[in-house]
Order: sequence, then structure tokens, then C-alpha cells
Amino acid sequence: MSCQFLSSSGTAIKLPRKKVMSMNVIGCSTSPIPNPVLRPELSIRVGTRLIPHPKKADKGGEDAFFVSGYNGGVMAVADGVSGWAEKDVDPAQFSRELMRRASSLVDDEEVNYDPRILVRKAHAATSSTGSATVIVSMLDNNGILKIANVGDCGLRVIRKGQIIFSTFPQEHYFDCPYQLSSETVSQTYLDATVTSIDIVKGDIIVMGSDGLFDNVFDHEIVSTIKEHKDVAETAKVLADLAYKHSVDFYFDSPFSIEARNRGLDVPWWKKALGQKLTGGKMDDITVIIGEVISKCLPQVAKNHG
Amino acid sequence: MSCQFLSSSGTAIKLPRKKVMSMNVIGCSTSPIPNPVLRPELSIRVGTRLIPHPKKADKGGEDAFFVSGYNGGVMAVADGVSGWAEKDVDPAQFSRELMRRASSLVDDEEVNYDPRILVRKAHAATSSTGSATVIVSMLDNNGILKIANVGDCGLRVIRKGQIIFSTFPQEHYFDCPYQLSSETVSQTYLDATVTSIDIVKGDIIVMGSDGLFDNVFDHEIVSTIKEHKDVAETAKVLADLAYKHSVDFYFDSPFSIEARNRGLDVPWWKKALGQKLTGGKMDDITVIIGEVISKCLPQVAKNHG
Repeated sequence: MSCQFLSSSGTAIKLPRKKVMSMNVIGCSTSPIPNPVLRPELSIRVGTRLIPHPKKADKGGEDAFFVSGYNGGVMAVADGVSGWAEKDVDPAQFSRELMRRASSLVDDEEVNYDPRILVRKAHAATSSTGSATVIVSMLDNNGILKIANVGDCGLRVIRKGQIIFSTFPQEHYFDCPYQLSSETVSQTYLDATVTSIDIVKGDIIVMGSDGLFDNVFDHEIVSTIKEHKDVAETAKVLADLAYKHSVDFYFDSPFSIEARNRGLDVPWWKKALGQKLTGGKMDDITVIIGEVISKCLPQVAKNHG
Repeated sequence: MSCQFLSSSGTAIKLPRKKVMSMNVIGCSTSPIPNPVLRPELSIRVGTRLIPHPKKADKGGEDAFFVSGYNGGVMAVADGVSGWAEKDVDPAQFSRELMRRASSLVDDEEVNYDPRILVRKAHAATSSTGSATVIVSMLDNNGILKIANVGDCGLRVIRKGQIIFSTFPQEHYFDCPYQLSSETVSQTYLDATVTSIDIVKGDIIVMGSDGLFDNVFDHEIVSTIKEHKDVAETAKVLADLAYKHSVDFYFDSPFSIEARNRGLDVPWWKKALGQKLTGGKMDDITVIIGEVISKCLPQVAKNHG
């Protein structure tokens, strides 16, 4: 079976014959067991890293997160909306209290492994003034990772070196994400995007605030995962990469590309000189790396914020 | 609240203050009802369009699909792997039989709204020689759209003008997707990526073969959805756009961009002349547009292949 499927000229790619998978080429076949899927009990080995915005480092930034070994594992990130500082409100208070409340509610009977209900109850219990984007993922006993997402935190699942799942940011307009708030006008758990994915042993879960995903491309995340085995090291390397890009005026980041796609760019006379809007986005950076393992293996629980 | 958050120079974008959502700016708040989510019974209004590869038009191409009004709705696409023609096997036979079998199994008790089990049973029942990529989505009584995906067919969910969910292609290497086959070496239902999303009235589901997603960008899908209300018309417009791009030697398609990202391009001496690999990808094009509606409204069922 030949793989010569691309013309070497700059003309339209014609693929009249998509390739049949040859018996000799690919070795990743799975036995066709004619029974319902039997799931081993799964858990998540977790590594985390938070790098605050350089100008907020003294206070630890405005991101908050927690991970819990409850059941298959719970991971959550909240990103405090920094505009509250203009109203003399510490933006970290809301995100940190939201995560504290959520952390204490993971085993709540009413929550029952439903991350949207966890968001609802944690939001209702939070009394601080402020607002935050938030993402919560919970692994249930059936090997299903359930995710509730409000705003522009994110989650990816990587299997065999490929992204097989991603959340999408929700926003009102560019860089104004959906957010939970102390004000009644905000979004609620009802605005969360609720998704799930059946995970298997060996899957890698990457969660983070927009400080990660605005500064690091998905293909960089995939290649970093391939190059590092230890979850703590992977989280550190990814957070460091996001930080490096965030302070690089010339890096053409996911954020700057998206900004240009939305029509935000340098003035026309700079464009005429060949310039364009580039640069990373300085922000708090939270990275959680979860490796899906058999439940018998050790797991790490950690609280922050 | 000011929106002056981008520097007008070509320097790093600094966003020390993410914006608080103002009470006056955004009108899409949702009442914070402190009760579990009550779901109306939902259904899907469907429009479909299949444009065969120009060289296969006489036989109708090798894509196949079906939609069913069973329960909340079932939609499925299979894309016959064309390499089988080299072995004197009609590549359409496998994909069409797979869809026929799946269509007859949607109400199978053992399937029980689980698209992965539907894939397993339909695959087991298919006796034709060949192989195909396949995606199946089923809407259950709880408003949850469950998706099983093997290969590079795809599905998007669009809510309020934003993509909130997308499948990801699985492949062995560039343009060699995971596939179900008559041969035991192929992938099985166990290799399917199984995901789900809680949908609400008004969501738009876009399903298709890679002939759609390799030739039409997600932002084009979103803008097309915004411009057209009728699902049948939307399916036609999107399929026509995919076809137009597929035969355009100069269109910088998702497929050609991905090819370049994988290191496939014109020879170095053409690059030196400023040329690059461009063009759409000629292929069978299947588009299914599903609009999520209350169950009392009429629904359309259609079979093809």
C-alpha cells in the first residue's frame, strides 16, 4: 500500500483512493471482543503548577485550583476576573473561595459525581465579591470523565499521542468569557457546557486556565506530553513554556492569532510595513496534568487557593 | 467598563485586568434557579446533503448516512475507504451496509441509546468486504447527545453562534484514519472515542464526513449557520461550499494547512519561488444539520445509502 497521496505541485490535492489500513502497517489493532466493555476502576495521578502573573506574584495571582482523590478523581480550576481590582475588590477572593467550597462539596450526596451540580452548590456557597471562570472535571466509577465548564478555562484529553477531546471557551465577545459572579446578572451553572468522555488507562488529561491555552498551542501540549513521563514535571514544563511565551513580544501565540482573526491588529500603516499584532498574553497560568491509571496505584491529592 | 485591552503596537499583549461582565453590557443572563435542571423532551430537525466525489458521481460516491427519529434522534455517517477499489472491491458496499445495519438496530434493546454498542452490533452484522470510518450520535431522553466516533468523520455543536463541542479525528498517520473493516486487523467499537454533551433547544449539530471538515473551516461553518435558518438549506449551502473548495487548486483548505503542518509541501525549489502546497481535497461530501427542537415539533427521518 503506497502512501504517495500528495501531488508535489502546488495544485489541488486529489485523493481518489483513501488508503486501506494494511495488515502489516499498523500494529494497534484491538481484539474484537463481542461483549460489553468491561472497565477497570480508574484513577488519576496528578501533577500541578501555578505561575502567577508577574505583576501579581506577591499575592499569588488570581487563579485557584484543587485536585481531590475522591472516587476516580476530581480536578477544578477557577480564574478570578481581574477587572474587579478596579472596584477595589481582590479578584483572587472569589476564585479561591469558589475552589474551597467546591473542594468541600465533592462528596456531597446531591452532587453525585455531577460537576454541574458541584458548580451550582459551590457558587451558591461562595460569599466573596467577585467573579471567575471555572472548570470542574469528575471521574466516575464507570470510567467516564464528566466536565462542566463556564468560560475560558480548558481541558484536553490526549490518547496515543493525539488529542481526542477538547473543551471550547464560551465568551460574550473577545476575551470577555462567561463567568460565575457574586452579582445576579452573571452566568450560572445552567450556562455551563456539560460534556463527558469515556477515558481509558494511559489517557492524559490536561486542564488549565486560559493563561495556558492562550500561550501554548495544542500541538505543543501534545509534543510536551510525548517528551515527559512524570506528571509533575510535565505540568512544570508546560507552565514554564506558557510563561516564556506570555512575556515574549514576538511570539505568535494562540491569543494573538485569535485577536487578528477577530479583526484586532496593528494600525494599517504598521501593516503596510509588514508588521502584525503578535505576542503572548501575560496572565496567571495554571496547569493540571492527570494521568489515568488503575485505581490500585497511588494517587496524589493537593489543595491550592 | 472599557474594552481597550489590546495595545495598538506590535508588542506583547498585556491584560492585567480581565474584564468584569457589566450589568449593562450583556443581556444573556440566565435565572439562577436553585433546582436541578429540568429538561424538556428534545428532538432534532434534520437537513442532509451528500455530494459524491466528481469521479464517483455515477455510482453515488462511497459515503453513506442515515437519520432516524427514534427517541430524541439518531444520526450517523460512514465513509467507505476508497483504497479497496484497488482490490476490485466497491468501497461503497461496506459503508452502505454498515449504515443499513445500524439503521435497523437503533431500537435494539441491547443498544439502549449507547452509540458504541450500536457501532459494535452494526459492525458485527455487516458482511460486505471493505472498511469505513463511522460516526454515530444518539439523543437520549435526558437531553444528552452521545457520540461514538471511529476515524475522521466529525461532529460539531454550535450554541449561540459559538462552537461548544467538536469531535477530533483519530488516525494512524496523516490521512490514514481509524476504520472499521471486514478484516480482523481493523479497529473495533473499542477504539471509538465516546463522548457526550448536554444539549438544549436551539443548539445546532453539524455532522459530516471528512469531505466537509477537510474543505470547510469551523469559522465558515459557524457563519453559514448564522446566515441560514432552514436545516435543509444550511446542509446544501455547506455541502456546496465544501465542493467549491474541494475543486479549487488555490484554496488554502484545512486539509492543505494540515498537510503542510505535517511536513508535506511542494519541493524546496518551488518554496524558494514563494509557492506552497494549497488546494481543497476532492472527496465525497456528506453534511447533516440537526436543529434541536422541542419534541412536539415535526421531525424528519431520511435514509440514504
